[in-house]
Amino acid sequence: MRLKRLFLLFLFLFVLQLSYSQSRKVINIPEIPGYQTLKCDFHMHTVFSDGTVWPTVRVQEAWEEGLDAIAITDHIEYLPHSKDIVSDHNRSFDIAEPISKNMDIILVKGAEITRSMPPGHLNALFITNANLLDREDVFDAIKEARDQGAFLIWNHPGWKRQQPDTTLWWDEHTKLLKSDMLHGIEVFNSTSYYPEALDWANEKNLTMFCNTDVHGPMKIRGNHRPMTLVFAGSRTEGGIKEALFNGRTVAYFDNTLIGKSIYLEPLFFASLSYINNPLELDNKVSKTIQIKNNSDVSYELELVQPGVGFDVPEEITLEAHHVTFLEISGNSDEVKAMKKLNVYYEVKNLKIASDKNLVVTFSFQNN
Amino acid sequence: MRLKRLFLLFLFLFVLQLSYSQSRKVINIPEIPGYQTLKCDFHMHTVFSDGTVWPTVRVQEAWEEGLDAIAITDHIEYLPHSKDIVSDHNRSFDIAEPISKNMDIILVKGAEITRSMPPGHLNALFITNANLLDREDVFDAIKEARDQGAFLIWNHPGWKRQQPDTTLWWDEHTKLLKSDMLHGIEVFNSTSYYPEALDWANEKNLTMFCNTDVHGPMKIRGNHRPMTLVFAGSRTEGGIKEALFNGRTVAYFDNTLIGKSIYLEPLFFASLSYINNPLELDNKVSKTIQIKNNSDVSYELELVQPGVGFDVPEEITLEAHHVTFLEISGNSDEVKAMKKLNVYYEVKNLKIASDKNLVVTFSFQNN
Amino acid sequence: MRLKRLFLLFLFLFVLQLSYSQSRKVINIPEIPGYQTLKCDFHMHTVFSDGTVWPTVRVQEAWEEGLDAIAITDHIEYLPHSKDIVSDHNRSFDIAEPISKNMDIILVKGAEITRSMPPGHLNALFITNANLLDREDVFDAIKEARDQGAFLIWNHPGWKRQQPDTTLWWDEHTKLLKSDMLHGIEVFNSTSYYPEALDWANEKNLTMFCNTDVHGPMKIRGNHRPMTLVFAGSRTEGGIKEALFNGRTVAYFDNTLIGKSIYLEPLFFASLSYINNPLELDNKVSKTIQIKNNSDVSYELELVQPGVGFDVPEEITLEAHHVTFLEISGNSDEVKAMKKLNVYYEVKNLKIASDKNLVVTFSFQNN
Amino acid sequence: MRLKRLFLLFLFLFVLQLSYSQSRKVINIPEIPGYQTLKCDFHMHTVFSDGTVWPTVRVQEAWEEGLDAIAITDHIEYLPHSKDIVSDHNRSFDIAEPISKNMDIILVKGAEITRSMPPGHLNALFITNANLLDREDVFDAIKEARDQGAFLIWNHPGWKRQQPDTTLWWDEHTKLLKSDMLHGIEVFNSTSYYPEALDWANEKNLTMFCNTDVHGPMKIRGNHRPMTLVFAGSRTEGGIKEALFNGRTVAYFDNTLIGKSIYLEPLFFASLSYINNPLELDNKVSKTIQIKNNSDVSYELELVQPGVGFDVPEEITLEAHHVTFLEISGNSDEVKAMKKLNVYYEVKNLKIASDKNLVVTFSFQNN
Repeated sequence: MRLKRLFLLFLFLFVLQLSYSQSRKVINIPEIPGYQTLKCDFHMHTVFSDGTVWPTVRVQEAWEEGLDAIAITDHIEYLPHSKDIVSDHNRSFDIAEPISKNMDIILVKGAEITRSMPPGHLNALFITNANLLDREDVFDAIKEARDQGAFLIWNHPGWKRQQPDTTLWWDEHTKLLKSDMLHGIEVFNSTSYYPEALDWANEKNLTMFCNTDVHGPMKIRGNHRPMTLVFAGSRTEGGIKEALFNGRTVAYFDNTLIGKSIYLEPLFFASLSYINNPLELDNKVSKTIQIKNNSDVSYELELVQPGVGFDVPEEITLEAHHVTFLEISGNSDEVKAMKKLNVYYEVKNLKIASDKNLVVTFSFQNN
Repeated sequence: MRLKRLFLLFLFLFVLQLSYSQSRKVINIPEIPGYQTLKCDFHMHTVFSDGTVWPTVRVQEAWEEGLDAIAITDHIEYLPHSKDIVSDHNRSFDIAEPISKNMDIILVKGAEITRSMPPGHLNALFITNANLLDREDVFDAIKEARDQGAFLIWNHPGWKRQQPDTTLWWDEHTKLLKSDMLHGIEVFNSTSYYPEALDWANEKNLTMFCNTDVHGPMKIRGNHRPMTLVFAGSRTEGGIKEALFNGRTVAYFDNTLIGKSIYLEPLFFASLSYINNPLELDNKVSKTIQIKNNSDVSYELELVQPGVGFDVPEEITLEAHHVTFLEISGNSDEVKAMKKLNVYYEVKNLKIASDKNLVVTFSFQNN
Repeated sequence: MRLKRLFLLFLFLFVLQLSYSQSRKVINIPEIPGYQTLKCDFHMHTVFSDGTVWPTVRVQEAWEEGLDAIAITDHIEYLPHSKDIVSDHNRSFDIAEPISKNMDIILVKGAEITRSMPPGHLNALFITNANLLDREDVFDAIKEARDQGAFLIWNHPGWKRQQPDTTLWWDEHTKLLKSDMLHGIEVFNSTSYYPEALDWANEKNLTMFCNTDVHGPMKIRGNHRPMTLVFAGSRTEGGIKEALFNGRTVAYFDNTLIGKSIYLEPLFFASLSYINNPLELDNKVSKTIQIKNNSDVSYELELVQPGVGFDVPEEITLEAHHVTFLEISGNSDEVKAMKKLNVYYEVKNLKIASDKNLVVTFSFQNN
Repeated sequence: MRLKRLFLLFLFLFVLQLSYSQSRKVINIPEIPGYQTLKCDFHMHTVFSDGTVWPTVRVQEAWEEGLDAIAITDHIEYLPHSKDIVSDHNRSFDIAEPISKNMDIILVKGAEITRSMPPGHLNALFITNANLLDREDVFDAIKEARDQGAFLIWNHPGWKRQQPDTTLWWDEHTKLLKSDMLHGIEVFNSTSYYPEALDWANEKNLTMFCNTDVHGPMKIRGNHRPMTLVFAGSRTEGGIKEALFNGRTVAYFDNTLIGKSIYLEPLFFASLSYINNPLELDNKVSKTIQIKNNSDVSYELELVQPGVGFDVPEEITLEAHHVTFLEISGNSDEVKAMKKLNVYYEVKNLKIASDKNLVVTFSFQNN
């Protein structure tokens, strides 16, 4: 019987390989000067807590969908399948690791410390032994993670089950922050955006995250999987860790980018190329500039202030992977003499604070 | 700690519900006289054998994709996750059953008897205790299933791993057939169609199946999930069992229907409605009939023989959920006097044997 | 040469037929009691004014897209192609008419009286001779149309070019209305919705329209072409004319229906079917009702008031051609005794006034 | 009246601009060494012959769909709209030219000489006065075109209306070829591929074309518009003319490229990038190479001969804009010592003759 089983195992290896995805999507988000832009998701579950997929599925999904790195973060305190599955918090990582190496996906070891509010749920990334996080007291658990070198994220801070009426920052979070035991916050989780988290991240210098918290098979609504963009010195786990501790991330969901202007602005301009021969604009003359958007993000622009000596459209969308005409019309005689024409647009889907979008300045050559 | 865990459990129920699918696709395949057309898949795996999803996922997928019934058929002999998961062959059914009742999906209890060729892999449906199928001798295992009342299917009979060069029918299958221990055969499995199986089904009176054998999360290529259409007296497990033992199925994959003409022909005509006022055709006159296809299947028609007294197109596609013009042109004076115009088309995607398609006769009113 | 040209003409007939569309989409919007629901577009242009397609294209597009009736409404006063094309306002109708008969599309003869504001642009439908509408004075032109039996529509009443700052009703419109020379108004044109027009239609008893005003080849954004639904006694030009003069229309664009509640309510309920066995709800028990939406419209529901003795979701979407679970949970002991459970939802995409949506009442059987 | 009309004209300019397309698709087909790859369509009609759109529509379509150059080629001999439209063969070019300059689309002046077979229909490109081509004798017409500097293409050589049973090359074509009055041939027209034309192009050194011959509004089936790829020294009319006379084209339709291997091979390899660290393959070891396809074409590869010392998949698809794993498995001890591993695949959708596909050689670094 043993031999026969071994033989069967050989047979089945083939079947499993067939179930591997055949091709990997390319996500077109440009590099920014000095950094690679890694596409990451640091929050997801498997059957080893309350998820419904085997750990290898998370790596295969990440590969197909074009991600560079993921963290599997099964709950420490909640194991609803424990009647059928071993209660070992390291197993989901151990099972997924070999396939992640084959598929060239960076697998960050993580776990979710899962408590009532405060402090709620926290992800610990870059840990070495998840089983040691199973402690009665939440602060003991967090300290253990930190002692293992963890980067700690406050998950879904405005989750209605834990913060039904308002999204509050608690004393416990201040305490964690001051003790170097809180480093990041989810501004987006699953299908929810938390604007308060964006403002806290700005005020308290927390790294911003956009994670899926996926429990079942990944289903992508719209054009792309929600993800955290990490601006890393290298495509390595170490590169990611350094970037996270230094706050170099942008949240990307629903064709929206959220983060600091120092990252959003170069990302925006690195997405575009122009055909801009000198316009030589004159009064009552119209000229066009062709703007090509090479990225997956369709940028929605709204004019901030009128041009001096010329008109441009109030609103314009730079559609992903398309060329858009920007029409510029002279409305005064002075325009003829101007060397550059400066155009100021707000990018409605690039947010730098809960109430503030990125403003960009195009400077087109005129003469 | 216990209480806190209970509290958490309450919290998480909410999360799990959110992950339920929000809506269920409607599959438009018509009834045929005397029967309901149930959409079924009788072959799939979970983490309890070599699949990679939790059993509840199979029910949720079936609900979303519009199926009426499924069988989870984990391998008896191959349990690669047994280091982490209990080796109980009844667990996948037991875990999936409550959610199947909530979602009104008929869950048939099954298992896959997984052996080298002959006789290869066989699905046992409608069993009562899967653990009793774990027998050294394959015939003992099959007999046990049959004693539990099982309907038995030969799976992927032309699987290259087991039949690398040719697709053969073995003496063992004759033996099983004669002993009432083989009732059905997969003419389609996963992404492979086995034309030999179709002919064997016709010769030996085996029920035809089209199953997905899905191991990972279900991914649908093209417009629909492969499925077995069951013509049942009622939408119940009993109704399905009776239909299977009486051979009332059609395989449906890649916009192709495979089965007996007694099922395919009424299915075809039940899909269509016409606007056919009397044509009153005359020589050198063209008239049109509007044919509306209310089903999800796009039918591809090829003329079998020219009309008598009139011309019709050589090829025509009745696109799913569209109206198509059929143009009829008189080519002789006699056409004026004909009461009915009979048109004979072969339906290229309705197969009744490996080398034979269904031929249909339209009879349009002329006068 | 003449003969050769005739021969060529014969050759080309074949080419033209190939360019005919092969199949016609089926629009799934139900009938309402007493009426057929006809799908119509009463505003479009061709090369015979400032459009860029030949008149036959409008009929072919309508056939492909599933419409029942259209009106070609070329401008009387604006003929930018007159250097190359004859200036005969009846030609676009005359050219399109034969193909409309072949394709079973009702072609309403129309024209657009095109003036500065007031009164702006007006469509005259059901006219007999468009050339007679070419009059210096706008009221003479409108009177001529009316004398021909025309139904008159105020087009795009809030068009920014003519009403740049506010959308006003002018004395001239009151005058037209009182003289039986204004019968309908566009609440939607091309890509713009005019909420003021909806309220005027309600106050002044004007028939509501949703027209495309298409000039180039029709391009459909989203899932469906904008259209006017007409509730007609018969699928004939006469049936449409009677319905328009009696105000039986609904505007349909962007998955939104706008009109009187006497039409929207039956349309909503005729779209749905239920699996609602008696719920036999009890306190702390959850039951589900399966609601099937057979229409192309996805209905977005928001709870208006809590149920008495039970909870239902705050928000629910009945996705087009899908089945949705409605979960009902008992929250008091009295619920057990109730015969019917009444649930009140507002349908956010069914508008009956600029600030008011349709409210619907489901009454589910409990015992 | 005159003034009012001028005012209206001003009003309508705005409307017309709105109907311009908002964005232009980017076609991803790479450059090849020494040349730009221009995307072109040299065969299409307007209302000025038997088409059904205004000439400007052809330019707008080309812009939206990402083309670089088009030729409008209205029939000289067939003007079915002449009752309503002036019979001037230069008008379609003259009307389309201004908008083509605004939109940066190269508009080649052309016409279709439209006769019975032989010689059938011929497109004359780069002509200066189309009216002079209206000659009784077909050879006079072709000579006139040639005297104007025309490049001449035999259109749809296997068109069933003109060559119902076989696709023949006639003496007249030989005569034209020898007189420098035939330079190119359509290997694809509308929806038909003519394999004979491909072989004639190879034998007789004719430039290959893939044109749409579109008559109505352009409708794109599948992922891309059929087009002729032109390898030009510059993106100018002169650049195109030089390239055509020197045979530097590839036909591109239905995800298939047809042309000479000297163009197809560099196009194929310029589409791909690799992550190929030295494999250091060993017997019974598997390694993977990631191949990224940056083009819009999905390449379908079939193994031509087994590797020496290693196995690779029999079939592999390099999906457009995706990364594909190529798995290489050592099957002998010698593989360890090999510096390069050569892999030979046939690319099934790159055709160089009617019965021959391009074979490509990958040479992967091993040590």
